[in-house]
Amino acid sequence: MNRSLLLAFLLSTFVQLPLIAQSSDDDAFFIRSIYDEAMTNGDAYNWLDYLTNKIGPRLGGSPESAAAVEYVRQMLDTMGMDTVYLQPCMVPHWERGEPEVGRIVSSSRMGTVDLNVLALGNSVGTGPEGVTAEVVEVQSLEDLAELGRDRLEGKIVFFNRPMDPTQINTFNAYGGAVDQRVYGASRASEFGALAVLVRSVTTRLDDIPHTGVTVYQEGVNPIPALAVSTRDANLLSDLLVTENIRVYLRNTSRMLKPKLSYNVIGEIRGSENPDEIILVGGHLDSWDVGRGAHDDGAGCVHAMDVVNILNKVDYRPKRTLRCVLFINEENGQAGAMAYRDASFANDEYHLAAIESDRGGFTPRGFTFDAHESVFNQKFRKVLEWLPLLEPYGLSLDKGGSGADISRLKPQMGLLVGFAPDTQRYFDFHHASTDTLEAVNPRELQLGAAAMASLVYLLDKYGN
Amino acid sequence: MNRSLLLAFLLSTFVQLPLIAQSSDDDAFFIRSIYDEAMTNGDAYNWLDYLTNKIGPRLGGSPESAAAVEYVRQMLDTMGMDTVYLQPCMVPHWERGEPEVGRIVSSSRMGTVDLNVLALGNSVGTGPEGVTAEVVEVQSLEDLAELGRDRLEGKIVFFNRPMDPTQINTFNAYGGAVDQRVYGASRASEFGALAVLVRSVTTRLDDIPHTGVTVYQEGVNPIPALAVSTRDANLLSDLLVTENIRVYLRNTSRMLKPKLSYNVIGEIRGSENPDEIILVGGHLDSWDVGRGAHDDGAGCVHAMDVVNILNKVDYRPKRTLRCVLFINEENGQAGAMAYRDASFANDEYHLAAIESDRGGFTPRGFTFDAHESVFNQKFRKVLEWLPLLEPYGLSLDKGGSGADISRLKPQMGLLVGFAPDTQRYFDFHHASTDTLEAVNPRELQLGAAAMASLVYLLDKYGN
Repeated sequence: MNRSLLLAFLLSTFVQLPLIAQSSDDDAFFIRSIYDEAMTNGDAYNWLDYLTNKIGPRLGGSPESAAAVEYVRQMLDTMGMDTVYLQPCMVPHWERGEPEVGRIVSSSRMGTVDLNVLALGNSVGTGPEGVTAEVVEVQSLEDLAELGRDRLEGKIVFFNRPMDPTQINTFNAYGGAVDQRVYGASRASEFGALAVLVRSVTTRLDDIPHTGVTVYQEGVNPIPALAVSTRDANLLSDLLVTENIRVYLRNTSRMLKPKLSYNVIGEIRGSENPDEIILVGGHLDSWDVGRGAHDDGAGCVHAMDVVNILNKVDYRPKRTLRCVLFINEENGQAGAMAYRDASFANDEYHLAAIESDRGGFTPRGFTFDAHESVFNQKFRKVLEWLPLLEPYGLSLDKGGSGADISRLKPQMGLLVGFAPDTQRYFDFHHASTDTLEAVNPRELQLGAAAMASLVYLLDKYGN
Repeated sequence: MNRSLLLAFLLSTFVQLPLIAQSSDDDAFFIRSIYDEAMTNGDAYNWLDYLTNKIGPRLGGSPESAAAVEYVRQMLDTMGMDTVYLQPCMVPHWERGEPEVGRIVSSSRMGTVDLNVLALGNSVGTGPEGVTAEVVEVQSLEDLAELGRDRLEGKIVFFNRPMDPTQINTFNAYGGAVDQRVYGASRASEFGALAVLVRSVTTRLDDIPHTGVTVYQEGVNPIPALAVSTRDANLLSDLLVTENIRVYLRNTSRMLKPKLSYNVIGEIRGSENPDEIILVGGHLDSWDVGRGAHDDGAGCVHAMDVVNILNKVDYRPKRTLRCVLFINEENGQAGAMAYRDASFANDEYHLAAIESDRGGFTPRGFTFDAHESVFNQKFRKVLEWLPLLEPYGLSLDKGGSGADISRLKPQMGLLVGFAPDTQRYFDFHHASTDTLEAVNPRELQLGAAAMASLVYLLDKYGN
């Protein structure tokens, strides 16, 4: 929330400028101790090194995801929590198969040109022979109906709308482009297309293709869906202006039978209000390229380090602190649904749930969500803490929380998304470049400190 | 400035919450157009590519610094400015010489160990034979007097105080550690030391040594001064606990005769108030390792892109807009002094001067300085623009401006430092890793947009 809106908000609700009065010296001192601990003895970066370099990518259903489940369980076990357990769920098991091939086979100007392509997650394969077809470039899902079956049947549809570079928050630009990746295959299939090629949803102009989930809607014939690097997308688009390009695509991806996997949960029972749960979480699975460092290894080690840091500064929570590492966020959210189902079945109340799933970059603040009937009251309470968090470069804004926790909204608690700087996230997102080298240790540890500070305030004062 | 202080400040000065009223839609629209231009057609990153990869490092007096002077002159010449000229000054000409050697020669536990070392800027050489001596570790300049000549004479003094990781703003941590690098050699020489080894002033724990200026104070015998990587500093410190280490150091650095070089200046004469100058600048020189991408290629292309962007959105400044690329910031500031001397001799008035010399990272805002008799009035005026800049993640705070412009303070104008996120700056600062790859294109371009927006407001409304 910017300062002018903040002023208007506070004045409109007759809160008499409580910001200064309510920021007690004790809280400032305690938050300082949290930051000191995080920046000198935090373990987030070390854990992330292990997750990314010793274990690797962790697609749901893969052996690596099972290794990750076991690793974080063991790490939580070292923290003296009251209970650490696995919450089972069945997850989709998709395999990429052999390295994909993408090739322009009939450019009179360029001859044969290899393209950097990568099957989208959950995509079917082309079959071992591959697919060769003419290419029709479109800018949006809406373009398909305009072109119609006559122009699309038997073709490869090439979705080429870039992320909008003028959006300051890159997540807004992502939201404005990702429909092509998620729904492009289903929609193009309805018009008889053979396959789709989707411009990588990234802020970079380079040769790295970015994967991510594609969703086959019920009743449509699933067709292969591949991402193409932004530089190759530009090349293809250029050639299409003057030539009737044919492209060859081959991938052997396939969906196997669902597998048993787990959310990993560690809990410290609250000393005074054990029925009020404060959740900190991230998701343990990643795509199968790169190492899932920012997405979402960072979120997992953030959540784990919150418990770790509060432990080390000898803080015993009054409310129940629960660290949840969700499985299968990327291609199904079976973990999130299993967690929700169990939570509602047990009549739980999450006072607050905080998810870190926007990377391990310099913290800029948090975004808050709640059922609309309680949002203003809850957000106003949170804003009273702004003077305590602002010295650490944090702002507090209305906004989304996280894919794994948003299903808890009917419990009427506060849902919080950790909001780091967004400029670099989509450089690495779902790509081979999402490795530990893309994570700065200080930026990562500051995230753990920011989350631990908010948890401390939520635990001490409620919401 | 945090929000609670902002409130207090505004209320104390009887400004009746003017923030909302004064943010005109026109200004918001125009600043949006500046950002759109910067993020779609900005040239900062392309220029930085040329400066860093085609020209390379640009130490004052080097052939590369001359090439950089010519390159940016030519670029400014393409922007339709009223005048582009070179401002001569004599700069120190220091050469690193042959690759340095640092070696632990007498560890009973480890045998001979090579150390990653790099001569500090302006350092004298050891002579071709090198220096071998016992090592005395100290944590501060103050430790020297305590140890005294008896313990230091004939020794290598090893300054090993790290940057404080708990400082959120890394420039504060730098300020708390850099005295060892700047004054260590002079002080240790007074106690008869043969050479100094200084822990690299960086936030990273790695094998990369970081250079930077060392200053020989008048009257002391100059002794060789070398930086050692943080990991090797830790190793050396560990060994010193149990062993009487001897270290061999060799460097052939030397100071040559001063050379003629230039500040590069481009100017658009103001259409209404030509005598009120708004300066945007960075420094063109860099250290001789790495490519000077963040320090301070980024600042140069920021300043140039301010002119470029305002041009492209058809903004004609009412006041004189001057782009100044300073030479020799790193080891003497001869360029800054030449500029100041000429400016005072010509009775100029800089309404505002903005320097970018903290890297090309995501903008967090600006820091403002001015003569204390006028600061409050000037800063209050600037704060009225906060609602226009806050949507872009910018805050406005009291703080330093820049080494090249701070000498203009007696003109009673506003001095401004561009303030990007600080977390990664000292990872790369003065090291071989300060290359284009360390710069994110979006983060860089956002900096140019932020500076252009502030220049627009200063030009339109004065200060």
